[in-house]
Formats: sequence, structure tokens, C-alpha cells
Amino acid sequence: MPGPLDPISLNVDGDRLLARLRALAEIGPIDGGGSCRLALTDTDKGGRDLVVTWMRDLDLEVSIDGIGNVVGVRAGRTDGPPVMTGSHIDTVATGGIYDGNLGVLAGLEVIETLAGAGVVTDRPLAVAFFTNEEGSRFPPDMMGSLCYVGGMAVEEALATEGIDGAIVGDELDRIGYRGARPCPGPFPHAFVELHVEQGPVLEEEGVTIGAVEGVQGISWTEVTVTGQSNHAGTTPMRLRHDAGRVAGEIVVAVRGIADNLGGDQVGTVGSLRLHPDLVNVVAATATLTVDLRNTDEDRLQEAERRMGDELERLAADEGVEITTRVLARFEPVTFDPTVVDFVEATAERLGHRVRRLPSGAGHDAQMLARVCPTGMIFVPSVAGISHNPAEHTEPADLTAGADVLLRTLVHLATIDPPTQEDS
Amino acid sequence: MPGPLDPISLNVDGDRLLARLRALAEIGPIDGGGSCRLALTDTDKGGRDLVVTWMRDLDLEVSIDGIGNVVGVRAGRTDGPPVMTGSHIDTVATGGIYDGNLGVLAGLEVIETLAGAGVVTDRPLAVAFFTNEEGSRFPPDMMGSLCYVGGMAVEEALATEGIDGAIVGDELDRIGYRGARPCPGPFPHAFVELHVEQGPVLEEEGVTIGAVEGVQGISWTEVTVTGQSNHAGTTPMRLRHDAGRVAGEIVVAVRGIADNLGGDQVGTVGSLRLHPDLVNVVAATATLTVDLRNTDEDRLQEAERRMGDELERLAADEGVEITTRVLARFEPVTFDPTVVDFVEATAERLGHRVRRLPSGAGHDAQMLARVCPTGMIFVPSVAGISHNPAEHTEPADLTAGADVLLRTLVHLATIDPPTQEDS
Repeated sequence: MPGPLDPISLNVDGDRLLARLRALAEIGPIDGGGSCRLALTDTDKGGRDLVVTWMRDLDLEVSIDGIGNVVGVRAGRTDGPPVMTGSHIDTVATGGIYDGNLGVLAGLEVIETLAGAGVVTDRPLAVAFFTNEEGSRFPPDMMGSLCYVGGMAVEEALATEGIDGAIVGDELDRIGYRGARPCPGPFPHAFVELHVEQGPVLEEEGVTIGAVEGVQGISWTEVTVTGQSNHAGTTPMRLRHDAGRVAGEIVVAVRGIADNLGGDQVGTVGSLRLHPDLVNVVAATATLTVDLRNTDEDRLQEAERRMGDELERLAADEGVEITTRVLARFEPVTFDPTVVDFVEATAERLGHRVRRLPSGAGHDAQMLARVCPTGMIFVPSVAGISHNPAEHTEPADLTAGADVLLRTLVHLATIDPPTQEDS
Repeated sequence: MPGPLDPISLNVDGDRLLARLRALAEIGPIDGGGSCRLALTDTDKGGRDLVVTWMRDLDLEVSIDGIGNVVGVRAGRTDGPPVMTGSHIDTVATGGIYDGNLGVLAGLEVIETLAGAGVVTDRPLAVAFFTNEEGSRFPPDMMGSLCYVGGMAVEEALATEGIDGAIVGDELDRIGYRGARPCPGPFPHAFVELHVEQGPVLEEEGVTIGAVEGVQGISWTEVTVTGQSNHAGTTPMRLRHDAGRVAGEIVVAVRGIADNLGGDQVGTVGSLRLHPDLVNVVAATATLTVDLRNTDEDRLQEAERRMGDELERLAADEGVEITTRVLARFEPVTFDPTVVDFVEATAERLGHRVRRLPSGAGHDAQMLARVCPTGMIFVPSVAGISHNPAEHTEPADLTAGADVLLRTLVHLATIDPPTQEDS
């Protein structure tokens, strides 16, 4: 029985959701139980065709825009912009079956549950899947949703060349998914995306639902250290200009900065190469990457500042030259607090353990946040495994996430919903 | 005029020495002014033939042993084991013109100077060049001198397969340098080797002559760190098992151990590889090498102990597995103190700045030290550059080194030489 803040007492059909996930996974299957549907390939077309068929079976009004984003709309009691959910169905080359797909197919499951119960929302509901979220074949990632909100011109996106030499526009035409609906827009009333966490936090803490507060800002820097190649036996320590030593100090500094700033700050040196990379030769050069992320732009800038200070100190200390190149820089995205609060309260009301957390990975929702109130719901990823056929989320958690999505969408689609003050 | 401790007032002919160095460098010339005479190749044969011709021109009695070591002997006033000098004439692929060659050709220059002045020493003098000192084509390095002192069986050396698939014995036969003289031996009365420093110390300190006290012990370890691959954005710092971070800490620890132990201790991480080596993925594994060297075996073992403690601490701290594999381990070699003292005193007497120092690189002399009183004389390497066509030593320094060599050889070849007490 719904309380005053519970918009609806319906529950999704977890088996039906899982059946759709498994049916979609059969398109582009790979060893280990995952899928490979790189954007705009034949397998992507196969996945798109299946999901569009499901949308039409649910009587959604399907439209496709100029960059291939597909939106299925279910009419509400009123016209006006829909409350939208969705995600993506393209995958990385070694994709799991939940990443992206869950957000799209849970949207369809919500629609089918409402339809089965004869529930019509005040505002229309929409389920979308955006083109090329992964960016594995065509950079940048989140291309479709970026175009959808006007962050990238469709013409520019269409001209993008892939790692295999293919062109986005050609491939869209080839698979028949360059649509007539203008892009950018139309902007929804609100947007909520259900996604697997792709990290270990929820599972590690025994939490079922993550109320995502925003997406971390990302700062990627390539650091090149130029020292002097020397004999590892004959060169006294005081006369060295050891690029390898400086690289090691940077690795340690990155960990120190993350630990000292605390909170959501993370820092990683994932790539590091020495030259000439020989046991008995002091390295002449080192090339490494520094990945800094924070949900707070000021603190992310503070991390970058400390990194810069450290590089300056190390260059002087070892007598090496250090140059840097920005590989990527995105400011953090903050989701709408009322959406985050509602997700959190709904999960609690349904008896799930819930925690607020930032997203460390990029998602289509961060693009939609530019144009409408937006939120995300995370469900646990077993062992935090992601972009891997071994990616897994327990069926009960998939269902829990879809139930929270259902209530959040219905709430947002309700004109003048009850508030805490009403109850 | 020689003082009581100066065995002779002769000086070598620096131009003649340089002319021989340049003539030998013309065999296997490479871009940048260096030479490539990898052991037992056609160019090595060409170099050997030229030096043997020079030995015969100087009326030396030339013999070749079963591993291709060539010894030219000049008779003394008495029989018995000769005082030997020499080095090697094989090079690395990117060899300079002084490494090894100087020690052999300075020996010939000493002989020619003595012959020109009609000086006959009490004991015989010998000039040797040893097979495959560099080990670039056939491991291990210092093969010829190791066999000469009985440290490796000739049969084993002859069966060694090179990086190009060639076999030492076959190549020795092919170039006509498998000789009849038995190996090991005969052991000399004493051995002194003149060599370029291959490091920056002498030049940096404005010193012309290095009185080499010994050769550093070497400890090479390959360290493998196995952590867990994770998303660099979604994995909180506290949940990481970051092989890259541990690799960085090891690099820093190696520098710290060398700095804290001080003295002759050096430490280098020259090779470091991460997997999967991607900007946004916490590294699953790291493989790196640790090169520790010291002239003192106890202190080298202390460095190894501290390294082991650090690896243990880091494995526990980050929750990673660390395994190690010994790549090489040689104890330090100490040269004969009376030879070292004599080299130092002679350099001073000739008006050169001199310092005692260890050798950080391996040399044939360290093998000879197993069977007779041995020493080495170093002359400066400009900028410490070695194993590179840009290797350079100023002509005046070459001459200074050869003059110290001449006096040291004559002193050692004198029966009942004057001592400090006599003067």
C-alpha cells in the first residue's frame, strides 16, 4: 500500500526484464557471456532493430534523429515534454550484458508494467537509447547524448572517423539509422537513468541502490620526463637525471594527493613507460598518465595544482625536464537534488539499503543534466567488474533498481505530486 | 729524472697510441664515429688480425688459446710468469673507439716505448685481448677472461649460443681463432688494465687518473607485482590493489636505500612495465627491475635486505602479491692494495690529479683478480658517455693513463723494486 509519498504500488516483472536483457545479449555474443556491439556496426543495428521492435510492441511512438538517437514516447494525460529514461545499447569490444542495456530495457519494463496496470501518467514518458555512448569505435564517447543536448553539432559528429577508418555518417546511413527528427532536442521535462555501478562501492558496503549525486570531473594529463640515459653502475646517485625515479615519485605523489584530499578524490597512474627500459641503464625518458577525478571542481583544481607543484619540485630536484599535455578535462556534473533525494527516499521506502555516491564513469545522464533536472540510479556491480563479459549484477538488484526507476519516473511525470509538506 | 720510487723516466708516444686507436676503429665503423665489432664476427676477426699483426711487428710471441684469447709476450731478463696488461677489442653494437681497445693498444704502446729505449724488464711483459668481453652477442660477458682464470669450462663457453643463433665454437673456427694454447692459464705474475671510466666521476671532479680499488658487486632482481585491474574512476582509493602504485613506491624506495646507505651504493629501476597500461585502468600487474651495486658485500646485502623489507611492507599495505626473481648476483671484487697504491702514487708523481674509485662496470681485470695481484687505471669519459659512438676521452688523458700504465707495469716487472723504506 503506497504511503503519501509513494506514487504507485506497482512492481516491475524482474523475469521479463531479465529475459529482454538476455535476448539483447544474444546479438553480438562473445566468449564469457558478454556482447560486442560496437557503435553503428551490424550487431549494433541488430540490437537497435530488436529494441525498436519492442518499443513498437509497447505502442510507443518511435522517432530517430539525425545522429541515430532513438526515442520511444508513451503519451500522458497531457502534452508537453516527456519524462525520459534511457541509456545506450552499444558496447565496448568486451562488453558485459548490463552496461547501458539495463537503463534502456528497464525503461521498457516500466512502460510495460504501467500499461499492464492501465496506469497513464500526467506527463508523457519516453525511453531513449543514445548513439555511441562508449566511444570505443568513434571518439568521443557519449556522442549521441552530447548532440542531443546541443553540445556537439550533428554535422561534426557525422564526419567523425572511427578507429577502423569508417565515418559515422556513412555507417548511420548503411545501417539505416540516420533519422529525420531534428537534433538537438526536444529536451525532456526530466531525465533519470538506471545503470550498473561499474565500481565496487555498493557491493562492498552491502547496499542495493545508489542515489547518484553527480558525475566526477575528469582531468587526464600525459606527463613526459626527459632526463639523461646513464650507466646504472658507473653513475653516482648525485650525478643522475633519472627519468624513471621521477616517474616513480609522480606515481607516489598522485596517491598522496588523492589520500590527502580525501573525500571523492581519486588519482591513478595507469600508464607508464620508460626508455630505453633496460635493467642497467638509467632511464632517459618516462611517459606516464595522471588521471585525477573529483565531484567538486574546486577540489579537482586543487589536486591539479598540487600535481603541478610536485612536478616543478621534482624537475628541480632531479635536474630533468617535465612537460605535460592535457588529454581530457571535464568539469564535474551535479544532478538535481530533488531527483537525488527522491531516489534515495524511494529506495528506503522499498526497504533497500541505499547510499548517495558520485559516478566515477561518464554516462548519457551527465549530458541530459545540461538541459533538464536529471538523476541516476545505480545497482551493484559484482566485484566492480566492468567492460568485461564477467560484468554481473544480481537479478534481485536489477529488479530493485527498476522498481525505484518506475516510482521516480511516475513521480516526475505527476503534475503537482504530493510533497513532504503535504503528508 | 726519476725519483727513487719512479721506475723509469720514459713517456709513451700519445700520437702513436691515438693512431692505433683510430686505425682499429676503421674496422667496423659506424655512424657517429664509433665501431661495431661484435664478438667473433667478421669485423672482430678484422680487428684481431690487425692487433696480432701489430704484436708480431713488435716481436711479441703470440699465442691463442682454446677460447680465442690472444696473448703477446715480450721476454724479460728472467723466465717465469709475465706481468700482463690488456683488455678486449670486441665492442657492443653501438661501440665507442676507446672501450677495451685502449687497454690493449696502450699495452702495445708501452712495449714499443720500452723497445725504442732498449729497456728490458726483469720479468716478461704480456699484452692480452680476451674474447667476448661485452657479451652482446654471446652471454655471459667477460667470457674469455672468465675461462682464462678457470671460472668457466672452455667446453661450456664453446657451446654457447648467441642471440643470432650462432655457436661460439663454430664462429671461433670460422674466423680462425680457436688456438692451441691450453686454457685456463697460464696465470700471470700480476695484471693491470687501463680502461676508460664509462662514468662521469673523474671528469666531473677534474681528475685525470682513477686508481680503481675494485669492482662493485651487482644484484639484479626482477620484481613482479600482481594487483587488481579496476576502473580508475569508480574504484575508491581504499579499495584499490594498484600494481602501478606499488611499482612507483619501489622506484622511490630504491632511491631512498641508495641515498641512505650512501658511500658507493647505487640503485636503479631501469625497466618498468604496467599492464594493461591504460590511462583509466588501475594496473593489474607491474614488472620492474632493481639494480643494486656496492663495493662492499655486507652493505650490498644490507641494501637487498632493506629492499626485501620494503617489498613485504608494500605487499601488505596495498594488498598485492609481490614475487622476485634473481637475474644476476656477483660479489664485489677488491683489487690488490699495493697495485692500487702504486697507481695512485705514480699518477701523483706525474703531476696528475688522481682519486681512488670503484668500477661500476665489469672488466676482464675482475676475472684476473682471482689468480694474481691485479689493478686498474681509469681515464675520464667525457660526460660519462659509454657504449655509444659519442664515447670520448681527451688525447692528453689517454696519454696520461698510458704513462701510468707503463710505470706500473715496469714496477711490477722489476724483481725487488725499491720501496718507500728504501728511499
